Amino acid sequence: MRHLLDFQGWTKAQVENTLDTARVMAEVLERPVKKVPALQGFTVATVFFEPSTRTRISFELAARRMSADVVSFAAQASSLQKGESYKDTLLTLEAMGIDAYIIRADSAGVPHQATRWVKGVVVNGGDGRRAHPTQALLDAYTLLEALGTLEGRKIAIVGDILHSRVARSNVELLPLLGAEVWVAGPPTLLPQSLPGARLTPHLDEALAEADAVMVLRLQKERMEAGLIHLQDYIAHYQVTEARLKKAKPGAFLLHPGPMNRDIELEGTLADSERSLVNRQVRNGVAVRMAVLYHLLVGKGR
Amino acid sequence: MRHLLDFQGWTKAQVENTLDTARVMAEVLERPVKKVPALQGFTVATVFFEPSTRTRISFELAARRMSADVVSFAAQASSLQKGESYKDTLLTLEAMGIDAYIIRADSAGVPHQATRWVKGVVVNGGDGRRAHPTQALLDAYTLLEALGTLEGRKIAIVGDILHSRVARSNVELLPLLGAEVWVAGPPTLLPQSLPGARLTPHLDEALAEADAVMVLRLQKERMEAGLIHLQDYIAHYQVTEARLKKAKPGAFLLHPGPMNRDIELEGTLADSERSLVNRQVRNGVAVRMAVLYHLLVGKGR
Amino acid sequence: MRHLLDFQGWTKAQVENTLDTARVMAEVLERPVKKVPALQGFTVATVFFEPSTRTRISFELAARRMSADVVSFAAQASSLQKGESYKDTLLTLEAMGIDAYIIRADSAGVPHQATRWVKGVVVNGGDGRRAHPTQALLDAYTLLEALGTLEGRKIAIVGDILHSRVARSNVELLPLLGAEVWVAGPPTLLPQSLPGARLTPHLDEALAEADAVMVLRLQKERMEAGLIHLQDYIAHYQVTEARLKKAKPGAFLLHPGPMNRDIELEGTLADSERSLVNRQVRNGVAVRMAVLYHLLVGKGR
Repeated sequence: MRHLLDFQGWTKAQVENTLDTARVMAEVLERPVKKVPALQGFTVATVFFEPSTRTRISFELAARRMSADVVSFAAQASSLQKGESYKDTLLTLEAMGIDAYIIRADSAGVPHQATRWVKGVVVNGGDGRRAHPTQALLDAYTLLEALGTLEGRKIAIVGDILHSRVARSNVELLPLLGAEVWVAGPPTLLPQSLPGARLTPHLDEALAEADAVMVLRLQKERMEAGLIHLQDYIAHYQVTEARLKKAKPGAFLLHPGPMNRDIELEGTLADSERSLVNRQVRNGVAVRMAVLYHLLVGKGR
Repeated sequence: MRHLLDFQGWTKAQVENTLDTARVMAEVLERPVKKVPALQGFTVATVFFEPSTRTRISFELAARRMSADVVSFAAQASSLQKGESYKDTLLTLEAMGIDAYIIRADSAGVPHQATRWVKGVVVNGGDGRRAHPTQALLDAYTLLEALGTLEGRKIAIVGDILHSRVARSNVELLPLLGAEVWVAGPPTLLPQSLPGARLTPHLDEALAEADAVMVLRLQKERMEAGLIHLQDYIAHYQVTEARLKKAKPGAFLLHPGPMNRDIELEGTLADSERSLVNRQVRNGVAVRMAVLYHLLVGKGR
Repeated sequence: MRHLLDFQGWTKAQVENTLDTARVMAEVLERPVKKVPALQGFTVATVFFEPSTRTRISFELAARRMSADVVSFAAQASSLQKGESYKDTLLTLEAMGIDAYIIRADSAGVPHQATRWVKGVVVNGGDGRRAHPTQALLDAYTLLEALGTLEGRKIAIVGDILHSRVARSNVELLPLLGAEVWVAGPPTLLPQSLPGARLTPHLDEALAEADAVMVLRLQKERMEAGLIHLQDYIAHYQVTEARLKKAKPGAFLLHPGPMNRDIELEGTLADSERSLVNRQVRNGVAVRMAVLYHLLVGKGR
């Protein structure tokens, strides 16, 4: 791969290769001196046309821990306000000699377009409702760490599936590793179809015998748009200790963060032993190191 | 000490030890190449739930000059806006492998709570009205530099004592080094009591024979809240050349910055030879280097 | 030179010396590892009292590629909001041990004043309508790269000359290298006189036999102020393929960015072979490296 945009055309071997490198990176992160010279002299730009501190910091740490330089471009503080296009912004950064672009955008397809404009490598840091591939890779890494394998495992994704790039990327990725993916949510927040996943408006059906449950963040905007009512959502889709009894004993809980405790999930669940939320964040840095390493100096070239 | 939250339980020896290290750091800062490898491979996060560019830059420089990596989290640009709690923010950073947190918050106690959430070390960068310990350490360092000793010296702190974490931390720290601390301000801006200090609404009483006068910044919010009238404040509490005649000849002037010239102090005083304001800023970097060094690699561990 | 504020008092030899160093820096930027240790241990502060992401990132990369540390101060996020003056801001940074200041300000003269306040070197990153010397240096570098020499060459600058620091700095600099500079724009956007340049309200006169055309960005504020009407501007001053026929065959096109495509210039022109826009951005990093190097460690000292 030359860029990481989504998982179209990826093979199981490529995924495993990336996750293997992430495991090496995770060992680096356990050392007292969490720094290797792998990307010395490379410059990584985070180009965020939509704000997200936690994703930005995760990529920034991934780059710095491999000794890359990092520059941050955020649309709010930028000349985009003066009408500069995505393209001109990226061409400007390209001319400054950036090696890798982490692009986040509220409209789908911006990272794809970027690959036509710049010579550097592009990593999709989340685009519209389309894809968030490093999130799915860290989810896969975390699930494998907890479950050993994804072969034949049932993973339930719960919440606003329709608008979720996290769901979409996981539905692309997890089946490659042998998982059976179910997605559940209110009818107004479910797509018509989602190749790779089984859809249901019944939470219990998705949870039944699941090995792990991924709870999505509920966006306030959905309520404002009249797509759901908060109390209805909580009544029918909040993931609770009680409802998790349908799943396999000890089934794990994931959430891409930031969590709305006591909205999409019972607050105490987030801190329970089932929760892999902090592992996800931890693994995110290792996975992003692996992705940048592959694209910039590894076999990705 | 494992964290720096305030000076509860601190001994004179601990303070002197920290200031001794700060003196070594100050020598590093006099070199043409102001950089040592002491914190290579460590990552320091500035976590500012309340904005403050100068404090952030001071800590950032302190960390960088010891070769640490620095990431900055500011609540404005962050998912806190989406309702994420202080706790989840810090747990997320913790999972990313941060070694030290510089936490600034508008509510008192956030840095204390943080020590229960994270494994890394916590430095209080100012919390509500409660404490601003690195400011007090740099004030102590600067006073010692100017006066030689604090034993038996009279230090006057003037202004809005009630809402000032700077005053509170200095009142905790300076007596440990033998100073007698007086605080003066309008009755509406004085606390009922302040253990460690002598309180007075009469500026002249605090200034009388003082060795140094620390002038606090007057917050516009106090006027809006009807606690004071600007002209009254200026008439009775502005520190001027004339009023300083009550103090010891050559008494020094400190201010935590940023100053409102001609409000809390006569503008020209800030640039006079009495003023230690720039020394305070300069010493701030050295003191913060010492604190981070002690907590991360020194005897603090 | 001790600072870079504008080109008053500069000689041709000094300009050529700076551009020669920039050529060496440009070679560094072609290497796989774009990093040299020239400024290790130095700290560069970008002090932006007016926002500009692209200029900030360009300077930041220039500093980092010579291994300097960089801290960023932006007025919006800062205590300037609390009424702190430019002077106190700079004195604070000075006390923290900054070696070089890149200062951008909406009012002319702030960088000049700064040289009286700080001991470190000052680089004008653009002040009001007055000067933007690194922009002019990168324009000169780019023109020399394209034309071989500026001796006897005709350069046309088109647009809002009156409010443009880019025009002003180019009019100071390019004649030193032998160029004949014409400036053209609507009468309401032309100054009374501009020593070093020939002024005309007739675009065709400026374009006639020009070797290169520099198109300035049209600020929306000018329309709001009633100085021009957009359709009139486009009709009479937009630089188009057709109008460029007046210029020498193959005349080059420059723009300081960000561009308003199809306003000040025909959109397709920006991507044509004539366009040096991306070269300008690329050369900007090399030129800024040269300036920082000269001022901090080179003959500038």
